[in-house]
Amino acid sequence: MGLVVQKYGGSSVADAEGIKRVAKRIVDAKKNGHQVVVVVSAMGDTTDELIDLAEQVSPIPAGREFDMLLTAGERISMALLAMAIKNLGHEAQSFTGSQAGVITDSVHNKARIIDVTPGRIQTSVDEGNIAIVAGFQGVSQDKKDITTLGRGGSDTTAVALAAALDADVCEIYTDVDGVFTADPRVVKKARKIDWISFEDMLELASSGSKVLLHRCVEYARRYNIPIHVRSSFSGLKGTWVSNEPIQQGDQKVEQAIISGVAHDTSEAKITVVGVPDKPGEAAVIFRAIADAEINIDMVVQNVSAASTGLTDISFTLPKTEGRKAIDALERAKTAIGFESLRYDDQIGKISLVGAGMKTNPGVTAGFFEALSDAGVNIELISTSEIRISVVTRADDVNEAVRAVHTAFGLDSDSDEAVVYGGTGR
Amino acid sequence: MGLVVQKYGGSSVADAEGIKRVAKRIVDAKKNGHQVVVVVSAMGDTTDELIDLAEQVSPIPAGREFDMLLTAGERISMALLAMAIKNLGHEAQSFTGSQAGVITDSVHNKARIIDVTPGRIQTSVDEGNIAIVAGFQGVSQDKKDITTLGRGGSDTTAVALAAALDADVCEIYTDVDGVFTADPRVVKKARKIDWISFEDMLELASSGSKVLLHRCVEYARRYNIPIHVRSSFSGLKGTWVSNEPIQQGDQKVEQAIISGVAHDTSEAKITVVGVPDKPGEAAVIFRAIADAEINIDMVVQNVSAASTGLTDISFTLPKTEGRKAIDALERAKTAIGFESLRYDDQIGKISLVGAGMKTNPGVTAGFFEALSDAGVNIELISTSEIRISVVTRADDVNEAVRAVHTAFGLDSDSDEAVVYGGTGR
Repeated sequence: MGLVVQKYGGSSVADAEGIKRVAKRIVDAKKNGHQVVVVVSAMGDTTDELIDLAEQVSPIPAGREFDMLLTAGERISMALLAMAIKNLGHEAQSFTGSQAGVITDSVHNKARIIDVTPGRIQTSVDEGNIAIVAGFQGVSQDKKDITTLGRGGSDTTAVALAAALDADVCEIYTDVDGVFTADPRVVKKARKIDWISFEDMLELASSGSKVLLHRCVEYARRYNIPIHVRSSFSGLKGTWVSNEPIQQGDQKVEQAIISGVAHDTSEAKITVVGVPDKPGEAAVIFRAIADAEINIDMVVQNVSAASTGLTDISFTLPKTEGRKAIDALERAKTAIGFESLRYDDQIGKISLVGAGMKTNPGVTAGFFEALSDAGVNIELISTSEIRISVVTRADDVNEAVRAVHTAFGLDSDSDEAVVYGGTGR
Repeated sequence: MGLVVQKYGGSSVADAEGIKRVAKRIVDAKKNGHQVVVVVSAMGDTTDELIDLAEQVSPIPAGREFDMLLTAGERISMALLAMAIKNLGHEAQSFTGSQAGVITDSVHNKARIIDVTPGRIQTSVDEGNIAIVAGFQGVSQDKKDITTLGRGGSDTTAVALAAALDADVCEIYTDVDGVFTADPRVVKKARKIDWISFEDMLELASSGSKVLLHRCVEYARRYNIPIHVRSSFSGLKGTWVSNEPIQQGDQKVEQAIISGVAHDTSEAKITVVGVPDKPGEAAVIFRAIADAEINIDMVVQNVSAASTGLTDISFTLPKTEGRKAIDALERAKTAIGFESLRYDDQIGKISLVGAGMKTNPGVTAGFFEALSDAGVNIELISTSEIRISVVTRADDVNEAVRAVHTAFGLDSDSDEAVVYGGTGR
């Protein structure tokens, strides 16, 4: 009967009906004897509408004023949610990120939370109120300017508040029933995961799973805040993300060997062709990329052709950064001394994630066999202790995911349809 | 070349085009060497849309959360305006009411400004920025909650900031060319007033003129801040409202005998019939009304009929308060001892305003003669030192206004059409 932090995404509060439904759920938690703190995103399409307005006014709307604009979205949803709760006979107060003590650095549009000083929130719940907090936003430590946390920021707000308030659990309500063994839009037989460790969830998040963002899971692991991902549309139990397996009835949920299969078609591949195979070459290339503030994902260097002394270096990066990376490499062409660049945005990445692969040597072989049986050609391979990722043609991705999912016995027995949609910010 | 505070209403920033037009005007003021602080209202219909959302969620959306909701409106317009200014190559920063130091009492939805501590605004303009401030909103002194100032609140924000920043002038931009000798929608020959004293403006505002609200003019008079009311759509000079007549060329604008004719059809009349004509009766009636927190306007007591010892008492009040007043009087019926109540919402009020009537004894007579010539029957009369008001049938109001306007030589020589619309909040 402690303190619960609940987070509702934009799709859960898309309209007045959604807000009223969410209000009822919040009141239920309060009736169960919990202190309740709610983090809410902007309603449905509000953010996109505000971005559209900004673009009409100025072609380069970024920085401080853009954050000021976007934070209007949560201000609307949180006030409406508080009204809906009051209408059900319970006391509620809404708070901006600044009022809730969400202190960030000054990097507008993608600020990081530095500290949370939740004095007003604690007082509000101690006085018997349900506290509603604007997700996605904070206030900068030095200039006291309004900041936003970037996509998925509301989840991070929720976890950070849960940590600062020493909450028992952080419940992330979304429009899916939890974290699945694969994207249910691709794999009809994907299963909901009852429990997953922080480590496996981090790997899934960085491999293309969109249910939780990497930064949010990282924060939860650091402060050991159990996350419960669940649907705001159903009453079902969702997925627990935590350090220790949860109890279900008499027994603990076992650690699965394989947690799931993730895929990602948002990346492109750049190949730097004809690079002299000598020490320091890779460093020059990736310094040029880093200086352009581009995050890269996988990197592979081919075996050098003995006859020429030249090699190729390939790496993957978000498609959205492709233009910038090509420009940066062209500018550094003389320093690097490559022959040409190849840009390929028709690729996909499939990743198998599971802590069990550390102790099950057959996993890697099984993964490649499944892809081979499905006729999928592998272009790049990258592995971590608990993940194997391959790059294939984009067209092969769905087939590859299904094949791997089946091969590792992840398919569900039932044929129930699973509803799935976007998760807002 | 000092500091200028400019205020733009919702109709001036109704869409992206409006915001860009206003941005250009602001930049022009900056180019002329002024430090510029801008107060902006919510875009066009934003406030009404937010109110509509609130009503969908809860039938009684008032108080703290309603203010939190409405203040999203200015947050959007001010951020967009700052972006549009930056796009023109000038630096701009937007500030919420709270950030701008607008400190209010805790009366949500119609808070009063207690103090303005504009440190951040002063710093921002001293650093060369154009500061954009959200109108209509503040933060409560005791609880640090977001408050709103009620209708017309943005004008008050502008005047209060101008006072706190010791500005040279407060420019109120709206969708009319200034203050007119009568409502141009009713009197085609209404003239724009070049200068009007605070006192006359206060009387016009409380008699139905909607260009400036009473509270805003009151504030400007207390701190002696000249107001320049002008159009954001034209480049014309507007109306100056100040203590001392302005210079125009070589000569001062003279104080007009009559400033203008105002009218108001938003009031109703209640007559308490058959009240014992003895001391203390009126006190009981108006205590009942005051306890219900209803503001009344005119009050008239008929001469008592000697035969019965009974009299009638009539008063006017906003139509919106009619129901509440009737209920309050019915509850007090035994204490008051009246026979019946008559409620009449088909009335109108016409007021003639001008400091000159103090020294021109013919004004009152001329006013009544003009109404008589127009065949308008007078139901109630009330006067102040610089104003005469009468109540007539609502149907007679427009004709009465035109007749009085002509009789006092206020008609313009030209027949130019005047554009007029709502002024937002």
